[in-house]
Amino acid sequence: MAKYSFGVDVGGTTIKMGLFDTEGNVLDKWEIKTRTENGGVNVLPDVAAAVEGKLAEKSIDKADVVGVGIGVPGPVDAKGIVHKCVNLGWGVLNINEELGKLLNLPVKGGNDANVAALGEMWKGGGQGFESVVVVTLGTGVGGGIIMDGEMLTGAKGAAGEIGHIHVDDNETDVCGCGNTGCLEQYASATGVVRLANRVLDKNTRPTCLKKGAVSAKTVWDAVKAGDEVAKEIAEQFGEYLGKGLAAVACVVNPEAFVIGGGVSKAGEVLLDYIRKNYTPNVFHASRDVKFTLATLGNDAGIYGAAKLVLD
Amino acid sequence: MAKYSFGVDVGGTTIKMGLFDTEGNVLDKWEIKTRTENGGVNVLPDVAAAVEGKLAEKSIDKADVVGVGIGVPGPVDAKGIVHKCVNLGWGVLNINEELGKLLNLPVKGGNDANVAALGEMWKGGGQGFESVVVVTLGTGVGGGIIMDGEMLTGAKGAAGEIGHIHVDDNETDVCGCGNTGCLEQYASATGVVRLANRVLDKNTRPTCLKKGAVSAKTVWDAVKAGDEVAKEIAEQFGEYLGKGLAAVACVVNPEAFVIGGGVSKAGEVLLDYIRKNYTPNVFHASRDVKFTLATLGNDAGIYGAAKLVLD
Repeated sequence: MAKYSFGVDVGGTTIKMGLFDTEGNVLDKWEIKTRTENGGVNVLPDVAAAVEGKLAEKSIDKADVVGVGIGVPGPVDAKGIVHKCVNLGWGVLNINEELGKLLNLPVKGGNDANVAALGEMWKGGGQGFESVVVVTLGTGVGGGIIMDGEMLTGAKGAAGEIGHIHVDDNETDVCGCGNTGCLEQYASATGVVRLANRVLDKNTRPTCLKKGAVSAKTVWDAVKAGDEVAKEIAEQFGEYLGKGLAAVACVVNPEAFVIGGGVSKAGEVLLDYIRKNYTPNVFHASRDVKFTLATLGNDAGIYGAAKLVLD
Repeated sequence: MAKYSFGVDVGGTTIKMGLFDTEGNVLDKWEIKTRTENGGVNVLPDVAAAVEGKLAEKSIDKADVVGVGIGVPGPVDAKGIVHKCVNLGWGVLNINEELGKLLNLPVKGGNDANVAALGEMWKGGGQGFESVVVVTLGTGVGGGIIMDGEMLTGAKGAAGEIGHIHVDDNETDVCGCGNTGCLEQYASATGVVRLANRVLDKNTRPTCLKKGAVSAKTVWDAVKAGDEVAKEIAEQFGEYLGKGLAAVACVVNPEAFVIGGGVSKAGEVLLDYIRKNYTPNVFHASRDVKFTLATLGNDAGIYGAAKLVLD
């Protein structure tokens, strides 16, 4: 009987790898370098070699391995077809088939944000739920949607791009995606800094925050210390994110939102500001949706990948 | 070998029923009255009796029936559990089990909007696509989401409630749901009338439209006749709906939006106004999503219900 699965999380600089038992306990984890040169031709062979090496090291028989799950930084549809990974130099390929052939094991691939969401549902902040939206507030704002335990990929693997929901008609700065007024422009780490500098520009009240020298962390630390100006920034953040997530809930009606990424290190106080603006703007059927914090950090991807092949 | 399926669409006043072959050809369709008295206890027995009657009439053996699909006007989760149907007087019940016991046939139930969406994907405006969002612009604005051929129900059967996405901070009128600024307040039949009366209130230009005597139809007829005031109303309609659907696409990344309901009778011109505002507000991966018109009208529900049990 198969007893193990591998979880692989491919990033632009490193590939995180984990060996799991079928209960979701991580037995070993390690990293290898991502070799992106030559259109990323080495990436999958390197992953295959790392898996084979670990099997040899641990004297594990392939018959005892359920499969290898893999998350990649690009759109992946439900059939495992990757529609370009700019960071890896990849065009269109079927990752399930290509890595499967190299390893002679079942392989299931997904978009890294979706896979990380699956990990948080399985062993992180979304435990106990089957339908969750995991929101990652990092350099950008990403989303991964799990419905009835399955990743929602979208037609071209671009479901969950909630950072690019349009939330402000009056924005003049341009988002990385080329549009203006995207949620990501207010709720990401850089978004919080933008909001902070705008508020500080017009501010005349006493505050510990200094324009040009704020970060998401200094803003949230100041909120916790009772700084009124920081609270105004947090209000604006909460208004954008609360309304944005209310729209998401009207579309997919999850049981819970799991909030992760660097900005989420602020903790519970962040959830309070989101809830305050979520509740009055959402359809009543989604009003009691739970908000929790992600707990797996950078390991969410390997957990979710391992879970992919255990379903 | 099973050759038939039944599609049932339960409304508050009538129950539409259809007998289909497995190719999706409707062999017979008829209606019965919805008896909502006594908490709707008669509804499922009436459906069962109508199915049994049709089998007898057509001399069809039960072994030749794949099953009975049924759409009901309330939230239904993926397990067939109905979470209240106010219009039928129902509380919580498992429709798959209850109707299945009465008929001794496989039964699969869903929310009426989701089931109608499945019908449009199968035999209507969404043919050829596997992932569509069907938008119904009627008295309200409803949505049904199909991803990879499957209905997206949401945790409590409330996915696709896109009429209640918040799209305007400055609205003072209250939506039927109790919130303000819902998409439904601008893009439903009554929403178009509201927009029209507001524009006509301030209007000094010549127009064929008369305040207090407009309908969605008169507005769109005037748009087609080149009426400048009607075009301004259509612009506003398109701005709200285009932005709202851009948000939906960021969340679920469909292949196509299928637009139905009374307002959609305006035809292709309506799609032009939606697209114009959709494209600049959506994430690039969803920019080439198709817009089509629904074609099944009131029969979408029986088609979708029949399809439910054929999957």
